[in-house]
Amino acid sequence: MIETNPHVIPKDEILNRSVFFVSDGTAITAEVLGHAVLSQFPIAITSYTLPFVTNKMRAEEVRDQINAIYQRTQIKPLVFYSIISDEIKSIITLSDGFCQDIVQTLVAPLQQEIGLEPKPELHRTHGLSPKNLSQYDARIAAIDYALAHDDGVSLRNLDQAQVIILGVSRCGKTPTSLYLAMQFGIQAANYPFTADDMDNLQLPAALKSFQHKLFGLTINPERLAAIREERRENSRYASLRQCRVELAEVEALFRKNKIHYLNTTNYSVEEISTKIIDSMGLKRRMF
Amino acid sequence: MIETNPHVIPKDEILNRSVFFVSDGTAITAEVLGHAVLSQFPIAITSYTLPFVTNKMRAEEVRDQINAIYQRTQIKPLVFYSIISDEIKSIITLSDGFCQDIVQTLVAPLQQEIGLEPKPELHRTHGLSPKNLSQYDARIAAIDYALAHDDGVSLRNLDQAQVIILGVSRCGKTPTSLYLAMQFGIQAANYPFTADDMDNLQLPAALKSFQHKLFGLTINPERLAAIREERRENSRYASLRQCRVELAEVEALFRKNKIHYLNTTNYSVEEISTKIIDSMGLKRRMF
Repeated sequence: MIETNPHVIPKDEILNRSVFFVSDGTAITAEVLGHAVLSQFPIAITSYTLPFVTNKMRAEEVRDQINAIYQRTQIKPLVFYSIISDEIKSIITLSDGFCQDIVQTLVAPLQQEIGLEPKPELHRTHGLSPKNLSQYDARIAAIDYALAHDDGVSLRNLDQAQVIILGVSRCGKTPTSLYLAMQFGIQAANYPFTADDMDNLQLPAALKSFQHKLFGLTINPERLAAIREERRENSRYASLRQCRVELAEVEALFRKNKIHYLNTTNYSVEEISTKIIDSMGLKRRMF
Repeated sequence: MIETNPHVIPKDEILNRSVFFVSDGTAITAEVLGHAVLSQFPIAITSYTLPFVTNKMRAEEVRDQINAIYQRTQIKPLVFYSIISDEIKSIITLSDGFCQDIVQTLVAPLQQEIGLEPKPELHRTHGLSPKNLSQYDARIAAIDYALAHDDGVSLRNLDQAQVIILGVSRCGKTPTSLYLAMQFGIQAANYPFTADDMDNLQLPAALKSFQHKLFGLTINPERLAAIREERRENSRYASLRQCRVELAEVEALFRKNKIHYLNTTNYSVEEISTKIIDSMGLKRRMF
């Protein structure tokens, strides 16, 4: 995604499409879905994300921004929007953009199937309401738990963990634990194996009783060495040889103890997290 | 969202609709968008999220699960799916569910407007590819940065922060910093004001030179007291009186120093984060 100054016309604008993600909420859903849709076309985009469009004045500013680009280029900006208020919505849809409502497009067919009228409310997909407050508190508690049980800091209260992630330094344990907490409210602890552990690598006693909660991460040695090199240049820690030794030992430990494990080299934190959820049969909560 | 055992029919299934979120990827987009769509209807749902449906066998399992519910209830489960492979997709669409393709519904109209054929690839909305690897590393670096600069742990390298979040204990600083890093790759530090600071509250010298990066969080005293009570029952820290004093002092400091601030009481971490981005004019990256 390229962000450009809207007042400067890039030379290659003809090959580009300007894209707007507009919402009365955070615009996160519009961004994510819009990118999924656009990724299917061989085009470059210049994108503008405009959240919290909840009043006429802000909507008119957005409309003017869309129209200004059309005036300059004679190419319709693509607009992915989600706005509940009809009055505010119509300001956007009457612009010179090519506008698609990301939510309502799926609501209309569903209305027929369900046989009930939709009641459009400011839905706040990523919002907070009295209805979900206790669930939200559980989410914050999960983030606190992940931080308190990051990198083996504490081995207390592991009975409260839904999953305990194991692996060498920089294989993805911390971002995965935090994502599981943030996105799904899952309580995840993580425990590192370090160079000092390698001579006689064993599963720590404190973890043995939680065998069914253990999940291992591994990674290709080359990728690990590159990541560690960023952290400590020219160190033994970052050497390919050291990475190979640690990974071989830890993978052997996973196999010996029948611990499920995943090679994270080609996976994002979202993919690693959802694969763990899937493999362990954990519950995904929604926020 | 209620998760139920698919082999037990809940008594109120007539009032419920079973909902499936099915994807060849993480299914996060299907879940988020599906919930936004369903929130407009006055119905209860029992939901099943089925990610990584990338082969025929797994697709047939999903189809059988959908069909079994239809057989039992004679009510079509609602299916929100995103699958690229035509062969696997057709196994789902030929099931007894009411199926909606969350991405393709928007692709078809766009094809006309753009005048190019879509090239459906396994798009991995939340995936990792050589193309976005350096961006992904920046995201992990932002998470590392947030952890290293959480709760005032380190005031070094604040020149690398894109935003420095200020506020009393438990007003939302840590989850917001982590979310800004995780979702948007933004480097956020945060700094707490504690009870000991209150006698003569001032902006620390280390922060003064970063005035333009400062953003304050506040919260209603009643909500803060309830959150703190969960942490330290019957403590002075959690008392309504103490919460009131700290918040009044800190809000006065924000005003005196002309620091933008936001009351987080009714906002989720997504909303707080995107409001900060909006207010500070920060760049949202996509992962």
